[in-house]
Amino acid sequence: MSRIWTIYLSGEIHSDWRERIAEGVKVTNLPVELTGPNTVHADSDDCGVAIFGAEPDKFWHDHKSARLNAMRTGTLIQEADIVVVRFGEKYKQWNAAFDAGFAAAMDTPYITLHPTEHDHALKEVNAAASATARTPDQVVQALAYLINGTMPA
Amino acid sequence: MSRIWTIYLSGEIHSDWRERIAEGVKVTNLPVELTGPNTVHADSDDCGVAIFGAEPDKFWHDHKSARLNAMRTGTLIQEADIVVVRFGEKYKQWNAAFDAGFAAAMDTPYITLHPTEHDHALKEVNAAASATARTPDQVVQALAYLINGTMPA
Amino acid sequence: MSRIWTIYLSGEIHSDWRERIAEGVKVTNLPVELTGPNTVHADSDDCGVAIFGAEPDKFWHDHKSARLNAMRTGTLIQEADIVVVRFGEKYKQWNAAFDAGFAAAMDTPYITLHPTEHDHALKEVNAAASATARTPDQVVQALAYLINGTMPA
Amino acid sequence: MSRIWTIYLSGEIHSDWRERIAEGVKVTNLPVELTGPNTVHADSDDCGVAIFGAEPDKFWHDHKSARLNAMRTGTLIQEADIVVVRFGEKYKQWNAAFDAGFAAAMDTPYITLHPTEHDHALKEVNAAASATARTPDQVVQALAYLINGTMPA
Amino acid sequence: MSRIWTIYLSGEIHSDWRERIAEGVKVTNLPVELTGPNTVHADSDDCGVAIFGAEPDKFWHDHKSARLNAMRTGTLIQEADIVVVRFGEKYKQWNAAFDAGFAAAMDTPYITLHPTEHDHALKEVNAAASATARTPDQVVQALAYLINGTMPA
Amino acid sequence: MSRIWTIYLSGEIHSDWRERIAEGVKVTNLPVELTGPNTVHADSDDCGVAIFGAEPDKFWHDHKSARLNAMRTGTLIQEADIVVVRFGEKYKQWNAAFDAGFAAAMDTPYITLHPTEHDHALKEVNAAASATARTPDQVVQALAYLINGTMPA
Amino acid sequence: MSRIWTIYLSGEIHSDWRERIAEGVKVTNLPVELTGPNTVHADSDDCGVAIFGAEPDKFWHDHKSARLNAMRTGTLIQEADIVVVRFGEKYKQWNAAFDAGFAAAMDTPYITLHPTEHDHALKEVNAAASATARTPDQVVQALAYLINGTMPA
Amino acid sequence: MSRIWTIYLSGEIHSDWRERIAEGVKVTNLPVELTGPNTVHADSDDCGVAIFGAEPDKFWHDHKSARLNAMRTGTLIQEADIVVVRFGEKYKQWNAAFDAGFAAAMDTPYITLHPTEHDHALKEVNAAASATARTPDQVVQALAYLINGTMPA
Repeated sequence: MSRIWTIYLSGEIHSDWRERIAEGVKVTNLPVELTGPNTVHADSDDCGVAIFGAEPDKFWHDHKSARLNAMRTGTLIQEADIVVVRFGEKYKQWNAAFDAGFAAAMDTPYITLHPTEHDHALKEVNAAASATARTPDQVVQALAYLINGTMPA
Repeated sequence: MSRIWTIYLSGEIHSDWRERIAEGVKVTNLPVELTGPNTVHADSDDCGVAIFGAEPDKFWHDHKSARLNAMRTGTLIQEADIVVVRFGEKYKQWNAAFDAGFAAAMDTPYITLHPTEHDHALKEVNAAASATARTPDQVVQALAYLINGTMPA
Repeated sequence: MSRIWTIYLSGEIHSDWRERIAEGVKVTNLPVELTGPNTVHADSDDCGVAIFGAEPDKFWHDHKSARLNAMRTGTLIQEADIVVVRFGEKYKQWNAAFDAGFAAAMDTPYITLHPTEHDHALKEVNAAASATARTPDQVVQALAYLINGTMPA
Repeated sequence: MSRIWTIYLSGEIHSDWRERIAEGVKVTNLPVELTGPNTVHADSDDCGVAIFGAEPDKFWHDHKSARLNAMRTGTLIQEADIVVVRFGEKYKQWNAAFDAGFAAAMDTPYITLHPTEHDHALKEVNAAASATARTPDQVVQALAYLINGTMPA
Repeated sequence: MSRIWTIYLSGEIHSDWRERIAEGVKVTNLPVELTGPNTVHADSDDCGVAIFGAEPDKFWHDHKSARLNAMRTGTLIQEADIVVVRFGEKYKQWNAAFDAGFAAAMDTPYITLHPTEHDHALKEVNAAASATARTPDQVVQALAYLINGTMPA
Repeated sequence: MSRIWTIYLSGEIHSDWRERIAEGVKVTNLPVELTGPNTVHADSDDCGVAIFGAEPDKFWHDHKSARLNAMRTGTLIQEADIVVVRFGEKYKQWNAAFDAGFAAAMDTPYITLHPTEHDHALKEVNAAASATARTPDQVVQALAYLINGTMPA
Repeated sequence: MSRIWTIYLSGEIHSDWRERIAEGVKVTNLPVELTGPNTVHADSDDCGVAIFGAEPDKFWHDHKSARLNAMRTGTLIQEADIVVVRFGEKYKQWNAAFDAGFAAAMDTPYITLHPTEHDHALKEVNAAASATARTPDQVVQALAYLINGTMPA
Repeated sequence: MSRIWTIYLSGEIHSDWRERIAEGVKVTNLPVELTGPNTVHADSDDCGVAIFGAEPDKFWHDHKSARLNAMRTGTLIQEADIVVVRFGEKYKQWNAAFDAGFAAAMDTPYITLHPTEHDHALKEVNAAASATARTPDQVVQALAYLINGTMPA
């Protein structure tokens, strides 16, 4: 099968989980294209006003950037084969849960990635997930299995 | 117009915001049917094992209940005309953000309801919302306007 | 056939075309439910800030109201069996053309209603329409024919 | 990410905004494919009769061309990732608003491009837009940010 | 089960097959709502020009009526539970085959009703049908079975 | 909430599980409409030839009945809020698994009902289910909880 | 624009209209991929029994082939950008009208191709068409215009 | 036509039917991409716990693997042009029937492949199928005909 799988990496932008998945995918030589949101925090916050003009009110400042970013995230989630949704230790990351709900409604399967301490708070999000991973490595192993049938060593 | 509007009330279950909207809708005599998740916290957590049998592992305990509850929430959100998504002061309420993402993907319009302190963390959720309210009263006023064209006093 | 037909009346709010259709429908005793946007111009412009709070910037003032109104118009257009889109002599009425495009994409059939002088400018909008009427009476006649098979006298 | 983004440029055909976006995209070396309607005004008006035979009645003359052009515009808008909708100083350009409504119903994100003087008349069209740009340069900057994460200089 | 089944009767308008089905449904007391196109041949041909104005060219005369009639047929076929498509001895009745293709694409099940002499010419239409009936009585028997489980006497 | 929930009961027709659910629903006074396939085995097998004429070849005999029955099952599954899929001790009941796959693709939530001995063979069907019940009583309890929030005694 | 347009050629298989379009497309050097049904009449009639075994009853003989052919035609029509539907002088060609109805429901634009004598009988099929051509040359000219903006010489 | 057809091979994993189809496709030089589930029985059963951690309860052991496998099967069935569903002599293979129901709801045409002894039990699954084959060779012949128009020798 010559298929390339598109995996959208949603959520936390303060740890290196995306890099670790990218590395794992590379080492394993998987036919995978990784996509995701803009992960430069400051740019993601300010892109709207930087391009379309300043807003004195912080609500609209945020709004302009969020609407702009949504053009990227919405497009890429919709064309993803699989979404990985990461919830980190800090921050509320409602946008990650929003992406999960969006994926669920679109019938795009997703894997959650988070520590066990969030299990109860994330029970609804996990209930619609195809799997819950604890480490980026498990995500890579899942992709290797799904695509090539390779079982973990 | 003889239409009855169905409004799904998603999110926080620890304050009386649903009751206040219900009261406002009643006082204003709006042709509205309010729906929502099961709001008895303990039942919502334990329904799965109470009906289908105990689980020693908390993850599957949660899973069974969450899957069961999702049959209700998924059905009711999909048939709602409008969803109101409430984020309270406490708890992470990822399920509320999940519902918002689900509604967005379904093209069901939603109104967020939360204090200003969450504005930045909720910017992606608000960007896809039709409005952001600060009080249950504003939600009732919005419904009164949308349905009957009544402006607030 | 006991069916009630829902007809959404989109566009111009400065002449009495909606009233004339309502009267015609009543006189002809058609099983029709007429829906439409809020037609009180000032309320339609100011509802957003009146309910959710003032905006110093006119763009966001408009935005808040337009987002709010869209919850009504989007819901009602989607459940209409037929949309009537009226373009008057004055104003640009881009919102009417927007509604026509929305209806076309939703496969909801629509009838345009406008004077011949707009024929060339509206050729794309008319090309996707099921009919082009010149008077409210013709719209009523079309409904009477569609629903009851009654030919015009 | 090796993705090519398809951007449909809808609306005004009397100024050079399409060329300026094309130039900006080229200079910035963006992986973008620009599409759009036939922009030769006379051909767009007369294609139907030129190919399928003359019509004495101007209404059907227009109709034949508009139906033919719609095969191109409908196909290309549906496969676009993003639509840019331009409203110029002159003309009513109801077709641009029609395209915006079509894109909105299709969940294709769009950016409007117009001078501030149209803000109020376009409030419904802008309310469903992901962004409102004032210059072609801003559109190019938005694409550069969305695709490559590049912030404006 | 308190359900009312909506059955759209498409095709031939020159024999009494619709009346025979209506009678059978009434005699059997089935919870069925029968719908269909306008079956007054002259009105169906001339409704467009009678309402919206004469056309010297027969093609546009036909076009105006056909576009108008399509608002009824399209709406009713889409909400039908089952479509019955009748091909008579005379005429080409391409519109009946068109309705069958439309129903097939909409996943609305349909029963064809025609004499055996058309079997070969209708093989593609029958291949997508749920059943092929030879008499109106068989259609009524099928409805009685589907709805009430009643087997033919 | 005045909603009536439609529950489709799919699968085994050789035990009284449907009656037990019907009884439970009645005793509990749930606002539920139960639907399902024709459960008279002989009629379900022979309806096609009884109505449309005998077939010497058993394959087409079966085919005619199965196509006819599918008009009922397809329509009712699509409008169900919840499907219950029962696998009994005997028979292969591939049609029950087919209904489950159909419901899954339609995003209609379903509950499986079967003894533990089938757990492994049904793992794919259960993986897409909202719950797995062992007794009709558990199904009734789940409905009571979903609809009224009533926990089992 | 580097796009390749896929054009499905439906209908009559007894004249050389497909070859003439293929030639025109080649001469004009259009980026077009032509698809269509199997046009070898005997094979199209007998493929089912040739592969899966003989049928004594002509109805099932036809049925097996028609079901098999539908896998090709359904797949290719669904992925076509434009469908051309040809009605010839002879035969009823209900399958062509069926394809037109299927395309209409799928929102795939189509062009009809037939002599004027069929205009009245095809009025419903033409009413949903984007254009009506009289010669294969006009179809090629329409494609050249739609794709490259080339007007006929 | 330069199209590559994607064929998903669902069902039995205990005989060499997939290999025989692969061989036939290779010998006939068909432009076909074959896809399917993971066919290593043990891996398919244990992948979930091997990657995400052991489960003492066999139900959840199965569940974790089945949910993981569903990400592959769901994705590949949805993008298949045609599905072949194989029912073998042994085992219940409810997952094969589930895939057939899923494909039916998705409007993906499928061919069943099974011995005649299962005809009656599979009548519902066959009723929605495009063809029923008895040998892998017949499947290859059907593909050769569908794609290239080649009749069996």
